Amino acid sequence: MLAHLEKFILSLQVARLSTLTPSGAPHTIPICFALFDNDTIYTPIDTKPKKDITKPLKRIENIANNDEVVVLFDRYSEDWGELAYVMAKGKAKLVSDEQENLQAMRLLENRYIQYRDQNYLPRGAKIIGIRVYDYTSWGNL
Amino acid sequence: MLAHLEKFILSLQVARLSTLTPSGAPHTIPICFALFDNDTIYTPIDTKPKKDITKPLKRIENIANNDEVVVLFDRYSEDWGELAYVMAKGKAKLVSDEQENLQAMRLLENRYIQYRDQNYLPRGAKIIGIRVYDYTSWGNL
Repeated sequence: MLAHLEKFILSLQVARLSTLTPSGAPHTIPICFALFDNDTIYTPIDTKPKKDITKPLKRIENIANNDEVVVLFDRYSEDWGELAYVMAKGKAKLVSDEQENLQAMRLLENRYIQYRDQNYLPRGAKIIGIRVYDYTSWGNL
Repeated sequence: MLAHLEKFILSLQVARLSTLTPSGAPHTIPICFALFDNDTIYTPIDTKPKKDITKPLKRIENIANNDEVVVLFDRYSEDWGELAYVMAKGKAKLVSDEQENLQAMRLLENRYIQYRDQNYLPRGAKIIGIRVYDYTSWGNL
C-alpha cells in the first residue's frame, strides 16, 4: 500500500465494512479497525451491544458464506476540496490462529483507548481478518 | 419511517452507498443525500471530480445491473455510548421523471450549501432514487 493511503486510513477511527448476504445483497456496518503489514485489516467482534445475541452475527454468517468484502475509509468535510476516500477490496475470514488473534488485539488496543481501558475487547474475542487485494482512492488524500 | 430514525438520518451530512458489481461483489462509496416522503433517498451524480470521466460511473453501472442497494447512516463518537447507525435496504434506479428530478434537486439544495452556492449540482444532473423497503437500527439513536 502506498504511504499516503496508509496515512489517510490510520487517521480515521471508523470505517465501513460491506459484506454479502447469502441471497447476494449488500450489508454494510461501521467498524473499528487496525492495519497490519500493508495488506491486512483487522476488525473485532467486540462487546458493544449486539442487536440479538441469540443469533449469529450477520457479518460472520456473511463472510462464512462469501468472503468477498469491501472496507471503505472516507473523510467528510464542509470544504468539499477536502473530501477523500479509499475503497479496499478484500477477502475476509475469522482469525483462527491464536498468535495472530493476540497480535491483532494488540494492534486494536494500540489504536483505541476504549479497547485498552473499557473492557470492550475481552481476551479471546473473535476477530475478522481481511486480506486486501485492491485499493481504489479518490479525492484529496 | 419512525420519527427518531428520520431525525438521526437528517442530522448527518454524509452516508455510504453500497451497490453490487456485475460479478456480485460489494462496492461502497460515500454519498451526499436527501430524504423524501419517508421512504425515498436521493443521491446525485454531482460535479465533484470523477476518477475517469471517459467511463460510466460504477455506481450507475451497478444499479442498472442489480438494483439492490444499502445506504448506511452512522455516527461515530469517542464516547462509545453515543454510537449509532441505521442501515437502509432499498431498490435503486436513476430518476427518469423530470418533475421528480427537479424536486430531488431542490431537496438536495436545501440540505447542502455547496449545492446552492458552488455549482456542484448543475440543472439536469443525474440523480439516483432509492426506494427503501427496510430499516435496521442500532445504538443510541
